[in-house]
Amino acid sequence: MIKKIGIIGLGNVGQATVRSLKKYSSLIAHRTSLKIEIKGLCDARRSKSKFAKINLLPFTKDAYQLINDPAIDTIVELVGGINPAKQFIIDALKKGKNVVTANKALLAQHGRELFALAEKKKRMIGFEASVCGAIPLIKSISQGLVSCEVGEIYGILNGTTNYILYKMGKDKVDFSRALSEAQDKGIAERNPSLDINGVDTLHKLCLLSYLCFGVWPSPEKVYTRGIKDISLLDILYAEELNYRIKLLAIAKKRGKRLEVRVHPTLVSMDHPISEVSSSYNAVSLDTQPAGKLLFYGLGAGGGPTSSSVISDIVSISLHAESYLRQEEKVIFLKPENIRTRYYIRFMALDKPGVLAQVSRILAAFGISIASVTQKERMKRKFVPIVMITHEAKERDMRRALAKIDNLTSIKSPSQLIRIENL
Amino acid sequence: MIKKIGIIGLGNVGQATVRSLKKYSSLIAHRTSLKIEIKGLCDARRSKSKFAKINLLPFTKDAYQLINDPAIDTIVELVGGINPAKQFIIDALKKGKNVVTANKALLAQHGRELFALAEKKKRMIGFEASVCGAIPLIKSISQGLVSCEVGEIYGILNGTTNYILYKMGKDKVDFSRALSEAQDKGIAERNPSLDINGVDTLHKLCLLSYLCFGVWPSPEKVYTRGIKDISLLDILYAEELNYRIKLLAIAKKRGKRLEVRVHPTLVSMDHPISEVSSSYNAVSLDTQPAGKLLFYGLGAGGGPTSSSVISDIVSISLHAESYLRQEEKVIFLKPENIRTRYYIRFMALDKPGVLAQVSRILAAFGISIASVTQKERMKRKFVPIVMITHEAKERDMRRALAKIDNLTSIKSPSQLIRIENL
Repeated sequence: MIKKIGIIGLGNVGQATVRSLKKYSSLIAHRTSLKIEIKGLCDARRSKSKFAKINLLPFTKDAYQLINDPAIDTIVELVGGINPAKQFIIDALKKGKNVVTANKALLAQHGRELFALAEKKKRMIGFEASVCGAIPLIKSISQGLVSCEVGEIYGILNGTTNYILYKMGKDKVDFSRALSEAQDKGIAERNPSLDINGVDTLHKLCLLSYLCFGVWPSPEKVYTRGIKDISLLDILYAEELNYRIKLLAIAKKRGKRLEVRVHPTLVSMDHPISEVSSSYNAVSLDTQPAGKLLFYGLGAGGGPTSSSVISDIVSISLHAESYLRQEEKVIFLKPENIRTRYYIRFMALDKPGVLAQVSRILAAFGISIASVTQKERMKRKFVPIVMITHEAKERDMRRALAKIDNLTSIKSPSQLIRIENL
Repeated sequence: MIKKIGIIGLGNVGQATVRSLKKYSSLIAHRTSLKIEIKGLCDARRSKSKFAKINLLPFTKDAYQLINDPAIDTIVELVGGINPAKQFIIDALKKGKNVVTANKALLAQHGRELFALAEKKKRMIGFEASVCGAIPLIKSISQGLVSCEVGEIYGILNGTTNYILYKMGKDKVDFSRALSEAQDKGIAERNPSLDINGVDTLHKLCLLSYLCFGVWPSPEKVYTRGIKDISLLDILYAEELNYRIKLLAIAKKRGKRLEVRVHPTLVSMDHPISEVSSSYNAVSLDTQPAGKLLFYGLGAGGGPTSSSVISDIVSISLHAESYLRQEEKVIFLKPENIRTRYYIRFMALDKPGVLAQVSRILAAFGISIASVTQKERMKRKFVPIVMITHEAKERDMRRALAKIDNLTSIKSPSQLIRIENL
């Protein structure tokens, strides 16, 4: 069987997809009897493409040359961003084509509309490459766990931030040093804000929420914190306490109640997700009846991501579709109603009575302390005090912390990082 | 769409599959518009079934009542073992039915023949449940990695042995104590030999070899060692050296050369697979272009395994088949040509010159030592000496060890455990 595709967007992933399709075409044909033919390449940013020329492939800067081509079965959208990618996908579906995309930002914000259109047109949208690059996570959830209820999701969904946190701990450097090293290595972009502030993780979490629960959260309503306030100090103290700090995407469903959030989190070193190093991604799922599952692999990079793009092209061509979820109604848990344990670090004047003041405030809000460590002793200087609390309500914790930060013996702001028991 | 199935074999997995199908039927219908109807249950070991009666399902002790029933689309074979399971599958395929099975022993030994028959009959054999119970590994490899070349497989494929090794290290108990605890908990069978001696792991590795490389190894030709010779001592020494001992299934392909083996292995604590605790399974793959991937989850148990059985029933019903591999020709590496690093433990008389004797023999075979630790000092008694070698050829290592074990100052047999850099 021959299937014809058009690829829009010749960035990293687009070029790697062309290369992988050429390199592994006989392998794919051998395994599936499918021949994938690239009918054309498009990149709106340029009028000529050396890359297309070297690969002896037709090139256009006008995406509609591909979208309107009746010979093309599947449009591969690798442009990224909302516009014009959204319109490309809409028009491709309307023209009766299947779509493969790696565009998490677009799907997180307009997925409901796009999947509804695909269903109406009886066409498919493959999006394996949009979450955790090379990991076949979308197919695992939608097909492998088709008869399972997912209760909890914990994900390291962004390689850049994981690399930065990992490097800080490993090389004992601060955030800005680790970031600039990541930029030098091409792991972080020149403008890394979407990664650093957790928004990329949030977009992927919205997609996982749809897949696992049939629920599209509104991205702007999900509690989201990035990693720029994590200091080396916190990473080292957490390690002493047998924890690593990871930027986690978290979702928990209990009956009709759903809790979705993104923030730096202390993870016990006993859990394999704490061992996810460098720019790797991982997703841990707690399910019924399949139990706990963990998927681990590269989350980005042209070559790795191209394998997911191609697996979608193949699946869709062979009608081995990812089954889509019907939407479900749930009640979202408000961030201030979260209950977790907390790591808190105060910078406190080293004088008698400070610890008592702090403890009194915590007690007043019903927060009980599991452990306290004072790191050094230096008279008349601010020294770090690290506390691990028992489970408490976020609202109480925030109020207590505001009070504590008002004490003259405390240098605000104090650090607060949530702890999850995976 | 309604699909009708017959389930043969009402053990743990069979009963759990019935239960899960009932419990999650509306979930499955919601997600896939598929209704799975159980047309009948069969268990040859009994003439009546209380379980079938409670579940209001027709029961027979004659499998052919189901295999010959024209209304049944898919036969679910959960009998296990070679006979009569093999004939059930052959006859079901000949009757035009699809088959779903969890039978790794059968597929490892007769998979080539059964898959060829399925292809001839244009029917499918789903076997997601046969490797790593709940982990959607088969679909991930065959569909998700359809355009990838797998270079290396490292797998913890047997929960029983992983539990025993884990318990030995955690509770500082010896093999037989950990085994009997596992038996008390139902994690090990009363006759645990297929698990303990590595044969169950071997069967699953044969299936992974087929999936990843298109190669069926002959199980009897694969170097296979179990865990019964692993002592607590070795586990503790390995830990001091920053390693954990795991029973690994290993396969490596370089060009047309394939290396397949099963044995206890030292794994660096820096690798997530070393963190696989209790009776969990995990598979680590090194691929091109998708990079390194790891899949982790429960490898056994009725409920978890039922999720894979059902995912196969659904996939096959919706024609979302796992693509099957064409067979490939390779050259199998002989066990004596393996090259790895080694952990060796000698019990040596604590007197001058013993270490020199041992070192001389190793040197004569070109084996160089990376580190030596003598654990205690006790005059005129045998004390353990632990060595880590640099990479060496298995043949040389074995010959050197035979010579060393002939020394009067050494209490044979010495311990040899391979080290893998994952």
